Amino acid sequence: MIRRIHHINFLVRDLDAAIDTYERLFGRPPDAREYLEERRVETARFKVGETWLVLVMPTDPDSVPGQHMQREGEGFFLISYEVDDAMGAAQTLVRRGIRVLDEVPRAGLEGWRLIDLDPDDTFDVVSQLTEET
Amino acid sequence: MIRRIHHINFLVRDLDAAIDTYERLFGRPPDAREYLEERRVETARFKVGETWLVLVMPTDPDSVPGQHMQREGEGFFLISYEVDDAMGAAQTLVRRGIRVLDEVPRAGLEGWRLIDLDPDDTFDVVSQLTEET
Repeated sequence: MIRRIHHINFLVRDLDAAIDTYERLFGRPPDAREYLEERRVETARFKVGETWLVLVMPTDPDSVPGQHMQREGEGFFLISYEVDDAMGAAQTLVRRGIRVLDEVPRAGLEGWRLIDLDPDDTFDVVSQLTEET
Repeated sequence: MIRRIHHINFLVRDLDAAIDTYERLFGRPPDAREYLEERRVETARFKVGETWLVLVMPTDPDSVPGQHMQREGEGFFLISYEVDDAMGAAQTLVRRGIRVLDEVPRAGLEGWRLIDLDPDDTFDVVSQLTEET
Protein backbone atom coordinates (compact mmCIF):
# COMPACT_ATOMS: atom_id res chain seq x y z
CA MET A 1 0.00 0.00 0.00
CA ILE A 2 2.81 2.40 0.95
CA ARG A 3 5.18 2.53 -1.98
CA ARG A 4 7.82 5.06 -1.02
CA ILE A 5 8.62 8.02 1.15
CA HIS A 6 6.94 10.79 -0.79
CA HIS A 7 8.30 13.77 1.10
CA ILE A 8 10.04 14.82 4.27
CA ASN A 9 9.60 18.31 5.68
CA PHE A 10 12.13 20.25 7.71
CA LEU A 11 11.14 23.44 9.50
CA VAL A 12 13.49 26.40 9.12
CA ARG A 13 13.39 29.97 10.41
CA ASP A 14 15.21 31.51 7.44
CA LEU A 15 14.34 29.90 4.12
CA ASP A 16 17.00 31.76 2.11
CA ALA A 17 19.73 30.63 4.50
CA ALA A 18 18.44 27.06 4.43
CA ILE A 19 18.28 27.04 0.62
CA ASP A 20 21.86 28.26 0.50
CA THR A 21 23.00 25.38 2.71
CA TYR A 22 21.01 22.67 0.93
CA GLU A 23 22.23 23.94 -2.42
CA ARG A 24 25.76 23.31 -1.18
CA LEU A 25 24.76 19.89 0.18
CA PHE A 26 23.04 18.74 -3.01
CA GLY A 27 25.17 20.75 -5.45
CA ARG A 28 22.18 22.32 -7.20
CA PRO A 29 19.32 24.78 -6.69
CA PRO A 30 15.88 23.70 -5.43
CA ASP A 31 13.45 22.24 -7.96
CA ALA A 32 10.66 24.54 -6.80
CA ARG A 33 9.96 27.36 -4.41
CA GLU A 34 6.33 27.95 -3.48
CA TYR A 35 4.00 29.56 -0.97
CA LEU A 36 1.30 27.26 0.39
CA GLU A 37 -1.64 29.33 1.54
CA GLU A 38 -3.42 26.41 3.26
CA ARG A 39 -0.55 26.09 5.76
CA ARG A 40 0.80 29.64 5.56
CA VAL A 41 4.33 28.53 4.77
CA GLU A 42 7.03 29.43 2.30
CA THR A 43 8.63 26.28 0.91
CA ALA A 44 11.55 25.15 -1.22
CA ARG A 45 12.00 21.56 -2.31
CA PHE A 46 14.68 19.31 -3.69
CA LYS A 47 14.02 15.93 -5.26
CA VAL A 48 16.48 13.50 -3.66
CA GLY A 49 16.15 10.18 -5.43
CA GLU A 50 12.44 9.37 -5.30
CA THR A 51 11.68 11.61 -2.31
CA TRP A 52 10.99 15.32 -1.99
CA LEU A 53 12.95 17.06 0.74
CA VAL A 54 10.89 20.13 1.58
CA LEU A 55 12.21 23.12 3.54
CA VAL A 56 9.30 24.82 5.27
CA MET A 57 9.33 28.33 6.75
CA PRO A 58 6.15 29.27 8.62
CA THR A 59 4.93 32.78 7.90
CA ASP A 60 2.29 32.66 10.66
CA PRO A 61 3.22 31.46 14.17
CA ASP A 62 -0.37 30.31 14.73
CA SER A 63 -0.42 27.92 11.75
CA VAL A 64 0.13 24.21 12.44
CA PRO A 65 3.75 24.34 11.19
CA GLY A 66 4.27 27.63 13.06
CA GLN A 67 3.02 26.14 16.31
CA HIS A 68 5.22 23.08 15.82
CA MET A 69 8.27 25.32 15.38
CA GLN A 70 7.38 27.41 18.43
CA ARG A 71 7.13 24.21 20.48
CA GLU A 72 10.09 22.24 19.13
CA GLY A 73 12.28 24.63 17.16
CA GLU A 74 13.78 24.04 13.75
CA GLY A 75 14.36 20.54 12.42
CA PHE A 76 12.35 17.55 11.30
CA PHE A 77 8.65 18.27 10.94
CA LEU A 78 7.00 15.32 9.18
CA ILE A 79 7.34 12.29 6.93
CA SER A 80 4.78 11.49 4.25
CA TYR A 81 4.28 8.10 2.61
CA GLU A 82 2.97 7.79 -0.94
CA VAL A 83 -0.15 5.74 -1.56
CA ASP A 84 -2.36 5.37 -4.62
CA ASP A 85 -5.57 6.17 -2.75
CA ALA A 86 -5.27 8.26 0.40
CA MET A 87 -8.81 7.70 1.66
CA GLY A 88 -8.71 3.97 1.02
CA ALA A 89 -5.30 3.66 2.68
CA ALA A 90 -6.51 5.68 5.68
CA GLN A 91 -9.50 3.37 6.08
CA THR A 92 -7.19 0.34 5.95
CA LEU A 93 -4.95 1.85 8.62
CA VAL A 94 -7.91 2.65 10.86
CA ARG A 95 -9.00 -0.98 10.60
CA ARG A 96 -5.47 -1.93 11.70
CA GLY A 97 -5.73 0.34 14.74
CA ILE A 98 -3.80 3.39 13.52
CA ARG A 99 -5.82 6.56 13.93
CA VAL A 100 -5.97 9.33 11.34
CA LEU A 101 -6.65 13.02 11.95
CA ASP A 102 -8.38 13.88 8.66
CA GLU A 103 -11.66 12.44 7.43
CA VAL A 104 -11.01 13.73 3.94
CA PRO A 105 -7.67 14.69 2.37
CA ARG A 106 -6.42 18.24 2.62
CA ALA A 107 -4.46 19.96 -0.15
CA GLY A 108 -0.68 20.18 -0.18
CA LEU A 109 1.84 21.47 -2.71
CA GLU A 110 0.95 20.63 -6.33
CA GLY A 111 -2.47 19.36 -5.30
CA TRP A 112 -1.05 16.49 -3.23
CA ARG A 113 -3.92 14.94 -1.25
CA LEU A 114 -2.79 14.54 2.36
CA ILE A 115 -4.13 12.64 5.34
CA ASP A 116 -2.36 13.01 8.67
CA LEU A 117 -1.95 10.06 11.01
CA ASP A 118 -2.26 10.51 14.76
CA PRO A 119 1.30 11.13 16.01
CA ASP A 120 0.37 9.39 19.29
CA ASP A 121 0.23 6.20 17.21
CA THR A 122 3.63 6.72 15.52
CA PHE A 123 5.93 7.35 18.50
CA ASP A 124 5.96 11.11 18.21
CA VAL A 125 6.82 11.20 14.51
CA VAL A 126 4.32 13.31 12.57
CA SER A 127 3.37 10.96 9.73
CA GLN A 128 1.15 11.38 6.74
CA LEU A 129 -0.18 9.77 3.59
CA THR A 130 0.16 11.49 0.21
CA GLU A 131 -1.78 10.73 -2.94
CA GLU A 132 -0.53 12.50 -6.04
CA THR A 133 -3.21 13.85 -8.34
CA MET B 1 26.94 13.22 -5.53
CA ILE B 2 24.01 12.51 -3.24
CA ARG B 3 21.83 9.96 -5.02
CA ARG B 4 19.06 9.16 -2.60
CA ILE B 5 17.98 9.14 1.01
CA HIS B 6 19.69 6.01 2.24
CA HIS B 7 18.08 5.75 5.65
CA ILE B 8 16.08 7.62 8.23
CA ASN B 9 16.29 6.74 11.90
CA PHE B 10 13.53 7.14 14.46
CA LEU B 11 14.27 6.74 18.18
CA VAL B 12 11.85 4.61 20.16
CA ARG B 13 11.73 3.55 23.81
CA ASP B 14 10.09 0.18 23.19
CA LEU B 15 11.25 -1.53 20.01
CA ASP B 16 8.67 -4.33 20.15
CA ALA B 17 5.81 -1.85 20.42
CA ALA B 18 7.24 0.24 17.59
CA ILE B 19 7.69 -2.82 15.36
CA ASP B 20 4.08 -3.75 16.03
CA THR B 21 2.89 -0.32 14.90
CA TYR B 22 5.10 -0.09 11.83
CA GLU B 23 4.08 -3.60 10.79
CA ARG B 24 0.50 -2.34 10.76
CA LEU B 25 1.53 0.80 8.86
CA PHE B 26 3.52 -1.04 6.19
CA GLY B 27 1.50 -4.26 6.25
CA ARG B 28 4.54 -6.51 6.70
CA PRO B 29 7.26 -7.43 9.20
CA PRO B 30 10.64 -5.65 9.30
CA ASP B 31 13.30 -6.74 6.83
CA ALA B 32 15.90 -7.06 9.56
CA ARG B 33 16.33 -6.75 13.29
CA GLU B 34 19.85 -6.22 14.57
CA TYR B 35 21.93 -5.05 17.50
CA LEU B 36 24.62 -2.48 16.64
CA GLU B 37 27.39 -2.66 19.21
CA GLU B 38 29.14 0.51 17.97
CA ARG B 39 26.11 2.60 18.97
CA ARG B 40 24.66 0.31 21.63
CA VAL B 41 21.23 0.19 20.00
CA GLU B 42 18.68 -2.45 19.09
CA THR B 43 17.30 -1.78 15.61
CA ALA B 44 14.59 -2.95 13.25
CA ARG B 45 14.35 -1.72 9.68
CA PHE B 46 11.87 -1.62 6.87
CA LYS B 47 12.77 -0.89 3.25
CA VAL B 48 10.30 1.75 2.07
CA GLY B 49 10.87 2.29 -1.64
CA GLU B 50 14.59 3.01 -1.95
CA THR B 51 15.05 4.13 1.67
CA TRP B 52 15.58 2.23 4.90
CA LEU B 53 13.37 3.34 7.75
CA VAL B 54 15.23 2.29 10.89
CA LEU B 55 13.67 2.07 14.34
CA VAL B 56 16.38 2.58 16.94
CA MET B 57 16.10 1.70 20.63
CA PRO B 58 19.11 2.79 22.72
CA THR B 59 20.24 0.18 25.23
CA ASP B 60 22.68 2.59 26.94
CA PRO B 61 21.54 6.09 27.94
CA ASP B 62 25.12 7.37 27.60
CA SER B 63 25.47 6.35 23.94
CA VAL B 64 25.01 9.07 21.29
CA PRO B 65 21.48 7.85 20.42
CA GLY B 66 20.71 7.41 24.13
CA GLN B 67 21.78 10.96 24.91
CA HIS B 68 19.73 12.27 21.99
CA MET B 69 16.65 10.50 23.32
CA GLN B 70 17.23 11.76 26.85
CA ARG B 71 17.45 15.31 25.49
CA GLU B 72 14.67 15.25 22.89
CA GLY B 73 12.55 12.17 23.52
CA GLU B 74 11.33 9.72 20.93
CA GLY B 75 10.96 10.68 17.28
CA PHE B 76 13.17 11.60 14.36
CA PHE B 77 16.85 11.03 15.01
CA LEU B 78 18.73 11.42 11.72
CA ILE B 79 18.67 11.36 7.93
CA SER B 80 21.45 9.76 5.90
CA TYR B 81 22.19 10.44 2.24
CA GLU B 82 23.76 7.81 0.01
CA VAL B 83 27.00 8.62 -1.78
CA ASP B 84 29.44 6.45 -3.71
CA ASP B 85 32.47 7.61 -1.75
CA ALA B 86 31.86 8.91 1.77
CA MET B 87 35.33 10.41 2.31
CA GLY B 88 35.39 12.06 -1.10
CA ALA B 89 31.89 13.47 -0.61
CA ALA B 90 32.81 14.75 2.85
CA GLN B 91 35.84 16.54 1.43
CA THR B 92 33.67 18.13 -1.26
CA LEU B 93 31.18 19.33 1.36
CA VAL B 94 33.94 20.77 3.53
CA ARG B 95 35.18 22.74 0.52
CA ARG B 96 31.61 24.05 0.12
CA GLY B 97 31.57 25.19 3.76
CA ILE B 98 29.62 22.34 5.38
CA ARG B 99 31.47 20.88 8.34
CA VAL B 100 31.73 17.17 9.08
CA LEU B 101 32.23 15.51 12.46
CA ASP B 102 34.15 12.41 11.37
CA GLU B 103 37.55 12.39 9.72
CA VAL B 104 37.10 8.78 8.68
CA PRO B 105 33.88 6.82 8.29
CA ARG B 106 32.47 4.89 11.23
CA ALA B 107 30.66 1.58 10.86
CA GLY B 108 26.88 1.28 10.73
CA LEU B 109 24.52 -1.61 10.12
CA GLU B 110 25.69 -4.02 7.39
CA GLY B 111 29.07 -2.31 7.23
CA TRP B 112 27.61 0.99 6.00
CA ARG B 113 30.39 3.61 6.11
CA LEU B 114 29.02 6.72 7.81
CA ILE B 115 30.21 10.30 8.10
CA ASP B 116 28.19 12.71 10.23
CA LEU B 117 27.71 16.31 9.18
CA ASP B 118 27.73 19.10 11.74
CA PRO B 119 24.06 19.62 12.72
CA ASP B 120 24.82 23.32 13.30
CA ASP B 121 25.23 23.51 9.51
CA THR B 122 21.96 21.73 8.71
CA PHE B 123 19.42 23.67 10.80
CA ASP B 124 19.27 21.21 13.67
CA VAL B 125 18.67 18.14 11.51
CA VAL B 126 21.23 15.42 12.26
CA SER B 127 22.47 14.56 8.77
CA GLN B 128 24.89 11.98 7.53
CA LEU B 129 26.50 10.42 4.49
CA THR B 130 26.34 6.66 3.87
CA GLU B 131 28.54 4.64 1.57
CA GLU B 132 27.45 1.04 1.11
CA THR B 133 30.24 -1.52 1.05
